[in-house]
Amino acid sequence: MAFQFIIEASEGNARVGKVRTPHGVFETPAFMPVGTNATVKALTPEEVRETGSQILLCNAYHLFLRPGQEVVKKLGGLHAFMHWDAPILTDSGGFQVYSLAPLRRIDPDGVTFRSHIDGTEVRFTPESVMQLENDLGADIIMCFDECTPYPVTREYAAESVAMTTRWAERCRRAHQRGDQALFAIVQGGVYSDLREQSARDLTALDFPGYAIGGLMIGEDKKFTWPVCELVTGILPWDKPRYLMGVGTPEDFLDGIARGVDMFDCVVPTRLARNSHLLTWNGRISVKQAQYREDERPPDENCACYCCRNYTRAYLRHLFLAGEILASRLATMHNITFYQEFMRRCRQEIRQGTFHAFRETWLGERKGNGSSRGMLLFPCG
Amino acid sequence: MAFQFIIEASEGNARVGKVRTPHGVFETPAFMPVGTNATVKALTPEEVRETGSQILLCNAYHLFLRPGQEVVKKLGGLHAFMHWDAPILTDSGGFQVYSLAPLRRIDPDGVTFRSHIDGTEVRFTPESVMQLENDLGADIIMCFDECTPYPVTREYAAESVAMTTRWAERCRRAHQRGDQALFAIVQGGVYSDLREQSARDLTALDFPGYAIGGLMIGEDKKFTWPVCELVTGILPWDKPRYLMGVGTPEDFLDGIARGVDMFDCVVPTRLARNSHLLTWNGRISVKQAQYREDERPPDENCACYCCRNYTRAYLRHLFLAGEILASRLATMHNITFYQEFMRRCRQEIRQGTFHAFRETWLGERKGNGSSRGMLLFPCG
Repeated sequence: MAFQFIIEASEGNARVGKVRTPHGVFETPAFMPVGTNATVKALTPEEVRETGSQILLCNAYHLFLRPGQEVVKKLGGLHAFMHWDAPILTDSGGFQVYSLAPLRRIDPDGVTFRSHIDGTEVRFTPESVMQLENDLGADIIMCFDECTPYPVTREYAAESVAMTTRWAERCRRAHQRGDQALFAIVQGGVYSDLREQSARDLTALDFPGYAIGGLMIGEDKKFTWPVCELVTGILPWDKPRYLMGVGTPEDFLDGIARGVDMFDCVVPTRLARNSHLLTWNGRISVKQAQYREDERPPDENCACYCCRNYTRAYLRHLFLAGEILASRLATMHNITFYQEFMRRCRQEIRQGTFHAFRETWLGERKGNGSSRGMLLFPCG
Repeated sequence: MAFQFIIEASEGNARVGKVRTPHGVFETPAFMPVGTNATVKALTPEEVRETGSQILLCNAYHLFLRPGQEVVKKLGGLHAFMHWDAPILTDSGGFQVYSLAPLRRIDPDGVTFRSHIDGTEVRFTPESVMQLENDLGADIIMCFDECTPYPVTREYAAESVAMTTRWAERCRRAHQRGDQALFAIVQGGVYSDLREQSARDLTALDFPGYAIGGLMIGEDKKFTWPVCELVTGILPWDKPRYLMGVGTPEDFLDGIARGVDMFDCVVPTRLARNSHLLTWNGRISVKQAQYREDERPPDENCACYCCRNYTRAYLRHLFLAGEILASRLATMHNITFYQEFMRRCRQEIRQGTFHAFRETWLGERKGNGSSRGMLLFPCG
């Protein structure tokens, strides 16, 4: 059996488990660092591993445009190409077509758009995207969907959900490799009935895993979490659920509490390259003058390579001098923090203390004036 | 004894040896990667070590401007600050004041100039530079000199050489730390008599090592090597000689043949960040279309991390996508190539075959139309 999901413990809707893939096992709830161009920005695969990451995400859309699927296939597939022998998930490009590509025209058969790199006209259909993801060879691949923008009319969202389900069927038929698990993506904007329909229809098609797309794209969180809870309540308990493009530690707590198993987000890596370090006490903007002679590591409780060997003063210096090493060290640290946070969540679920942990964490961060929580606030 | 130079074998004027410093031993002839801002661009210290590098160079001028000598001193000195516990040499800033700083005014007592970063007025004197290098705490520090431009009048060069010698005396008097070896810098442009005078006067002051400055700054190489040979012929045999800011593998062969023991150059790291990979067969400009599906490593004879794990096709992709990992892998490889070249030179000298190796190497590269040799020419 190439793909297997085992739930080892649960607390309410929160679950802890393992996903087995042809390239090894990853623990859930899992955070997947983003390796858009077949590299997690600034890190080697060994360093990504050292952060505690067990699976990473690559973008089929970007790899289609550059270097091209035939290059990756000829070089032995994504794992060999990028020298990462653990699990990989490829996103189908549905979100990138929506967020990056200009001159996008959607029709019932597929999408025509222009490359955001050189303007070349490109056409994606469910079948061409399956060929693309088959050629890339990730362990988990995603159906080609339409990610509707926010806000969107009910009428448009209804048509789009029906189309995304038809596309999921076509993806399932076109998908050729037994060693790759194909996940379907639930859409439907903030409309409960459409989300419910999407989740039921896709569940009826029996995929090995399901994603929730089209959330955290601008809508108020008063919509986000009810939609998430509604969808996970419909999806089969014994299949992994992946909340796409999310998020912050607070989001993880909210998603995990509703039965989400997998997350991906560029936040920790992007913040790192912009000199923001995440710690259990809050965010450090390490370019600030207050760190000029600060001999402490970014986080005294962290055992990552950056915290073991470098001071805030040195990191500040590297960022001010525009040195590449700055981005490297900060990225290592931030992903490590995210993975340590995820490890803590798994541990709390096993102990049956996850909901208490969540309440405490969120309670301590209430009233700081931000719905994004700790990540946007410097530590005291 | 904090500093010691032992010549272990020689062949003609070429010597192989070891330099002992408070932070360990380095073998000569040595190539020192440049860590301008207390980091070798794109690499961690562990990676620099893995290239075979045993000593690196930092720039006192840059560190004076940013983060400031008091910061480095407070953080425990350069070794602790940058997490490199092997030997370091700091350049005095003489070359940077000449090449980088605007509004430079030289007087007999020192130099007034403006920071190339923010325009702040700065004054360097031999005494202030010794305080700076003492605070930074490198194992080998350089006297503050004037590096005259090319071309320069004989009259100016003569005055400058006399001043640089007086400054060397002042540096020696001001230098306070017994655990740092202070090297003097021979100047004199392309004027043989001035070079001779500079070398004799500085030798009379008895420094633990000597550098040759002001070469390879635009003069024809028909001047470079006779000047180098003249100077090394005067300098004491038992002290290390350092040819500053040089160069390519061909330059190493020419310098070593004339008794040079130490080199530094930004060429391998700068070429790497611009996608040029150095190999025993010539230079690869890895962004070229011919490498699109090339499954070979940069150099099949190289055992560096980059060549062990990555293809030319992947490196091409990373460079075209503007990924940080591209610069990292290429820098690792190029410095490794330089260090392997140096290791080969040391081995050839020990075997008494260095001059034959040099003749063969230079002979094979003659007639390629460039005085810089292999580095500027793509491999066949």
